[in-house]
Amino acid sequence: MSEYTLLDAYLESNLEASLQELARLVAQPSVAAQNWGLQECASLVAEMLHRRGFRVEVMPTGGAPVVLAERKGRSDKTLLFYNHYDVQPPEPLELWETPPFEPSIRDGKMYGRGVSDDKGHLVARLFALDALLATEGELPCNVKFIIEGEEETSSLHLHEFILQNKERLQADACIWEFGYVDHRDVPMQYLGLRGICYVELSVETAATDVHSGLGGSIFPNAAWRLVWALHTLKGMDERIRIPGFYDAVRPPSARDWELMAALPDVAEEYRKRYGVREFIKGLQGGAELHIEEVFSPTCTICGLTSGYQGAGAKTVLPARASAKVDFRLVPDQHPQDILQKLRAHLDREGFSDVQIRFLGGEPPARTDPDHPFINLVVETARPVYGVPMQKVPMTGGSGPIYPFVHELGLPVATAGLGYPDTRAHAPNENIRIDLYLKHARHMARVICEFAR
Amino acid sequence: MSEYTLLDAYLESNLEASLQELARLVAQPSVAAQNWGLQECASLVAEMLHRRGFRVEVMPTGGAPVVLAERKGRSDKTLLFYNHYDVQPPEPLELWETPPFEPSIRDGKMYGRGVSDDKGHLVARLFALDALLATEGELPCNVKFIIEGEEETSSLHLHEFILQNKERLQADACIWEFGYVDHRDVPMQYLGLRGICYVELSVETAATDVHSGLGGSIFPNAAWRLVWALHTLKGMDERIRIPGFYDAVRPPSARDWELMAALPDVAEEYRKRYGVREFIKGLQGGAELHIEEVFSPTCTICGLTSGYQGAGAKTVLPARASAKVDFRLVPDQHPQDILQKLRAHLDREGFSDVQIRFLGGEPPARTDPDHPFINLVVETARPVYGVPMQKVPMTGGSGPIYPFVHELGLPVATAGLGYPDTRAHAPNENIRIDLYLKHARHMARVICEFAR
Repeated sequence: MSEYTLLDAYLESNLEASLQELARLVAQPSVAAQNWGLQECASLVAEMLHRRGFRVEVMPTGGAPVVLAERKGRSDKTLLFYNHYDVQPPEPLELWETPPFEPSIRDGKMYGRGVSDDKGHLVARLFALDALLATEGELPCNVKFIIEGEEETSSLHLHEFILQNKERLQADACIWEFGYVDHRDVPMQYLGLRGICYVELSVETAATDVHSGLGGSIFPNAAWRLVWALHTLKGMDERIRIPGFYDAVRPPSARDWELMAALPDVAEEYRKRYGVREFIKGLQGGAELHIEEVFSPTCTICGLTSGYQGAGAKTVLPARASAKVDFRLVPDQHPQDILQKLRAHLDREGFSDVQIRFLGGEPPARTDPDHPFINLVVETARPVYGVPMQKVPMTGGSGPIYPFVHELGLPVATAGLGYPDTRAHAPNENIRIDLYLKHARHMARVICEFAR
Repeated sequence: MSEYTLLDAYLESNLEASLQELARLVAQPSVAAQNWGLQECASLVAEMLHRRGFRVEVMPTGGAPVVLAERKGRSDKTLLFYNHYDVQPPEPLELWETPPFEPSIRDGKMYGRGVSDDKGHLVARLFALDALLATEGELPCNVKFIIEGEEETSSLHLHEFILQNKERLQADACIWEFGYVDHRDVPMQYLGLRGICYVELSVETAATDVHSGLGGSIFPNAAWRLVWALHTLKGMDERIRIPGFYDAVRPPSARDWELMAALPDVAEEYRKRYGVREFIKGLQGGAELHIEEVFSPTCTICGLTSGYQGAGAKTVLPARASAKVDFRLVPDQHPQDILQKLRAHLDREGFSDVQIRFLGGEPPARTDPDHPFINLVVETARPVYGVPMQKVPMTGGSGPIYPFVHELGLPVATAGLGYPDTRAHAPNENIRIDLYLKHARHMARVICEFAR
């Protein structure tokens, strides 16, 4: 009989009660973008932790409150969990098969807004703690939670909050808010997040639109100004032309290449899923595609708006034009540095009329793939998932990981119940209950092994 | 007593009845873009001409019918009037002070959709004929009307119709549908219209939008493709880069420069009216601004659309992007030629993925500023307006003038009741009744002098 037999038995037999607790949490709307139910949800989360013997504080941030919680354990070591209680807006409502805030179970899945991102992760972790408390009477190590309410609106106050509460957040390692199995049901260990610098570029050339027959030959055109300005940012060779943009970029290491080479080729799957004929930069697939996907910074036009956009022809010279542009950053780039370089570049190129509005940013950060804590999380996954967890040195998305790595100095591991059809941010968000249980079993093992 | 005393007296004393006839015509909606009331309006116009002894036919075109009308006169010479009975959509309705199809008179103006563009012109000309018939018992010369119903939707069937009815349209000169006095109340003689080639450029790079964190480094981006393609069309020097684009352009003549130099400087007025800080190409004003405004062909981005355009940040890699682009053409450019050169250029530059949708086109055309008929129209204006009519060798807008000049071989003169605040195409479209009367007086004189 393994030392985890009792734990697993507890989790098996208490699964339904845990899912009921999750359903109650999902039923509490907490939409950050709409400022809907955030205080109520923070209170509910605080109550859930308090019931488990945590010292809990709901702390103001200037935005949605942060729930900080801590419970002492047997060993001196401290594990910090980062989660968030806010969710994406539920719209478009008509595409949900059951209402987003009335969680329901069918075909082995629970549906509801936030059930995967991120409430399922939080409650599965509490469930693992329940199992440990029930079987051992105490926690094997100190456990802390930092649970924010602005993750879906770019964690505006989190960095500052962490700086102001460094002492209280002291820990030895961190488990990130999410984790995934891939399309083969193989659990993945994502070891870093790209940063982001999101801006809106806008130009105004006149007080009003003008008839194109009148103004076309003599007036400046905001749409042309925008096109020309954008063209200076990136050429058809995909190279970003802002001087100094690549200065801080660290190239991927031999170890990064090795880990990427161990991943399955996704070229064919990507082509099919997204209907893309070919990749840019002549990419064909394999490790090269994986490396490029996450280790190269980007300059993506997310949106363009100007003038007449309806059916047919309207002969108008637009007075205003704007673009949403998202720079994904890799270590050691920084959004504020990129923002300054962007402004200087536009000025130098003659585009001081192009306004930059900063819409959000986070620096990138990553954890050493061979950090002992990462190996611990990877190794404890094996008996639960039946296959080895695969390390991915970096992922393409962004999140508030920087202060955890660089202010608190923590190794950050990902682990979770996500899967390819989990539909986070989309209608019919759901979790697979088998993966919910596995995540709880995995977390219980991580805490036990970490405590030694 | 001048020979026009009786005519003028008739017009003065019958003005109210003529305005009532105009009001009835304006009350009949005839919105080409919405296919609303076109047949009814064509019948009403036919009836108005029939009542005046014209042989009238309402002829099918494949689109809205054309009203053709003819009445013999004393001399052999034939004057052709080009007008249209269709109007712009009345929206936005809430900005009208009185309903668009319930014409009303206040402060010496009549308000209603189409009262200026172009129903007022048509009825003022019929009013002039009434005066001639009342005072002379016959028309001094043959008079023909071609009145189309698709002018506001780019006269899709007019060119073909003219080709098929060349005999019946034979004439010696043509009066165009519109004319204006400027801000000084000086009548202007516009001697040509630019052509147009209006296209929608679109790119599709994937079946669906993709999260920018995933796709930014490896997938093609439709918005970038569009920006790069547009950039090849025109540089910041405002020079259009499509090979051969300028081949057919005739530079303005010394006479064109002379006429433009005689016009008042509009630089300051333009700056104020449109809130433009400076003109492009280093233009300062004077004749140079006038010449550039109408004698240089353009490539105007009228609209841009791609990806996310709402508030705040959305991290999306757009699968689709499109632009509306309007080329204004000068003699002797031709829209079909430009279209072919555009396609060849995009292909050569590596943009065969950029689709071109042709949304309409008309070639440019102009009349010799010193043509005797032009001089006749200019000279007859003097006693009516009290100031000399000023010749403008070309205007920046477009219209179906080409077949009149180049298929029917006619000199085309402009004359009308428009003024700077006439608000054609906008809410509260209106005419000044004093200018309505002046236009009728002018037209009666033109017909008399032309008949000699």
